[in-house]
Amino acid sequence: MNVSPTRMRDLSRGAADDVRMRGFAARHTVEAALAWLDSQLKPLDAENVSLRMAAGRVLASAVVSDVDVPGFDRAAMDGYAVVAHTTEGAGAYNPLPLIVIGDSMPGSPFRGSIVAGQAVRVMTGAPIPCGADAVLPAEFIEETTHGVAALAAVSPGRNVGRRGEDIVRGTTLMEPGRVLRPQDLGVLSSIGRGEAHMVRRPRARLVVTGNELLPSGSHPEDFHIADANGPMLAALVERDGGVVDFPGLVRDETEAILDAMRADADIVIVTGGSSVGIEDLAPMLLAQHGELAVHGIAMRPSSPTGIGRLGHRLVFLLPGNPVSSLCAYDFFAGRAIRALGGRGKAWPYRPVRGVLNRKISSPIGRLDYARVKIADGQVEPLAITGASVLSSTTRADGFVIVGDDSEGFAAGAEVEVWLYA
Amino acid sequence: MNVSPTRMRDLSRGAADDVRMRGFAARHTVEAALAWLDSQLKPLDAENVSLRMAAGRVLASAVVSDVDVPGFDRAAMDGYAVVAHTTEGAGAYNPLPLIVIGDSMPGSPFRGSIVAGQAVRVMTGAPIPCGADAVLPAEFIEETTHGVAALAAVSPGRNVGRRGEDIVRGTTLMEPGRVLRPQDLGVLSSIGRGEAHMVRRPRARLVVTGNELLPSGSHPEDFHIADANGPMLAALVERDGGVVDFPGLVRDETEAILDAMRADADIVIVTGGSSVGIEDLAPMLLAQHGELAVHGIAMRPSSPTGIGRLGHRLVFLLPGNPVSSLCAYDFFAGRAIRALGGRGKAWPYRPVRGVLNRKISSPIGRLDYARVKIADGQVEPLAITGASVLSSTTRADGFVIVGDDSEGFAAGAEVEVWLYA
Repeated sequence: MNVSPTRMRDLSRGAADDVRMRGFAARHTVEAALAWLDSQLKPLDAENVSLRMAAGRVLASAVVSDVDVPGFDRAAMDGYAVVAHTTEGAGAYNPLPLIVIGDSMPGSPFRGSIVAGQAVRVMTGAPIPCGADAVLPAEFIEETTHGVAALAAVSPGRNVGRRGEDIVRGTTLMEPGRVLRPQDLGVLSSIGRGEAHMVRRPRARLVVTGNELLPSGSHPEDFHIADANGPMLAALVERDGGVVDFPGLVRDETEAILDAMRADADIVIVTGGSSVGIEDLAPMLLAQHGELAVHGIAMRPSSPTGIGRLGHRLVFLLPGNPVSSLCAYDFFAGRAIRALGGRGKAWPYRPVRGVLNRKISSPIGRLDYARVKIADGQVEPLAITGASVLSSTTRADGFVIVGDDSEGFAAGAEVEVWLYA
Repeated sequence: MNVSPTRMRDLSRGAADDVRMRGFAARHTVEAALAWLDSQLKPLDAENVSLRMAAGRVLASAVVSDVDVPGFDRAAMDGYAVVAHTTEGAGAYNPLPLIVIGDSMPGSPFRGSIVAGQAVRVMTGAPIPCGADAVLPAEFIEETTHGVAALAAVSPGRNVGRRGEDIVRGTTLMEPGRVLRPQDLGVLSSIGRGEAHMVRRPRARLVVTGNELLPSGSHPEDFHIADANGPMLAALVERDGGVVDFPGLVRDETEAILDAMRADADIVIVTGGSSVGIEDLAPMLLAQHGELAVHGIAMRPSSPTGIGRLGHRLVFLLPGNPVSSLCAYDFFAGRAIRALGGRGKAWPYRPVRGVLNRKISSPIGRLDYARVKIADGQVEPLAITGASVLSSTTRADGFVIVGDDSEGFAAGAEVEVWLYA
């Protein structure tokens, strides 16, 4: 954090506490922070995306088919395409002769047309020849010296899949906002689309600061610690549909941080130096050069979180402690990435209910994020509360939220657990 | 399917039905097919993967930390590192003087040591100097003409995060088989790992056959239909953690199919021509050159499904109809991809319960896959049963399975719905 002795002097009681008190005197509630954030969120513009890359992404506009699928009547089983009334009265004791005039295969249809008394051999999926209106299954045909004979009657339309049976031209198949499933890609392909019109993925620049940090992949040494926030946040952003730009650690220096915050991105996520000390550069820079709309939030961990704008970018200032960083990401930055990408704002975590085996306390006026283990419906709060103990989030199965209007939950209370996934 | 007139002749009643009867006379139950399949499934070998690519992948071996995190005692808040007993008796009316001998910042620690009566200014996260054992918060320090004075006592260990507080060297942090979460990457990074030892992703070659097909992205024209299976299966394979090799459509010709099935892959998924007609090349080729262990399964759709091996490859022969293809993928091929990749065999679909608003019938001896819509707990079976109507799986919210020992469910019955996602 490169604080000069002069600056450190300002950190001694008077100055530092004044700053702290001034900065966080009026902490925002989580609700107020979300209200400001939500006022800034609308889905990004759209782009055309190859179907191959579209699974799990969000459709930007409705899909209306301009074709019938199939585009022709087709055989629903192997057999003989016929004019149905030709077979009236046919039976095992009354075989009616048919003249086979050709074959229709899915890859090589019969191009002529047929009339009463004629038949065309068809395979499942093959086009029904012009003039035919039913398929007589192979088991109701017998070979005769002159050709074949029908051993049963079929009614018109029988064993025929009609043109448009799957999709009728003009039908709206999918609505905007839909997250595309694998089978949706199949349907889009079947109507001739090689691309889909999708909401653009938000680009998120990660600005991981802290002069004590070594880049991920380094062995921690001496008083240096290896960056945990970068790899974690990159995976979180991708989980929520964003595109990550993380070119490396950023020094705790005004110009370096400001340059990084001015990245070509929709969202900037800064970690470290987010509090109110004079050494905390990011909030000051954001207030000077953009808008620091929210700073200091009544929650634990993640209280020294800031949210604002720099030009068109939404900026999130997350504490450097990794649990705080995770929690603030999930509450604020992740919500923005999901919303800009056209997704729901809700957590991607699945809620389950369980019974607490130990109480969770939390003061009124502060929201708490308590990591828990859950087994057989029994919810066990982890003893660790430190925002620096990231391994607690690996040991935990999920978390319980204690709202700021609650003093917590007694042992035996039923609570909602959000499962990490 | 390029069937010569001579071959078509074989398709007429006698030959074709004999083949059909012979081939599927003894249909496998889904249970028997799964039993054979499960006997073939074990996780693939492991590989080292960069943390950046490891989220959502499966850990191949346990992670044991070879370092303490942090590797040093650190300040848990801003304040002054002291020898705790120095502060005994300190209070607002009994300030005890301290000599400040330096600063410790996370990025630039104090390298000396301190003794009783001395203090070092520390920031949260900074190393505690040698000799100190507590941090006195800044608000309990007042500046004096000679230096600073303590206004409160602290006990040993107070406001200090101990070495190993997060992770103690030698601790097993994660077990094999774990699907890595974002925070797990943070933990791995914090112990100095830049890579993780992960189960290899299964490579799946898609062999989409059907001479009537146009490549995905083509407009359906005349009697040609655009390939729906390729894009759908590619997305399914990736959803289940596999790597897709799909170089393009394959002609319905012996050599072309055999070549494609001999791909460098763990799993080969063939679609089209999977039944028992002479035009169905894939089962014949697999039986000749490898092992066709299962062919014909008592289920609807997907009954003409085959499963076997060709050398080291597991081979799945899926029907060309896209709903059949989806269903057979989910029952068999997807299970194999998940298992080879070290994941659970279970469906990635979430089950919910609801009440049927219309009956679902299904004969004893056959498993049925019924697409349904669900709203407010009301489950509505879709009227469409055709295996060619892929849009039904886009309209549906999920499916209900009717086991082969059941005749179905009455209206009003509570059923389990597997939600597409």
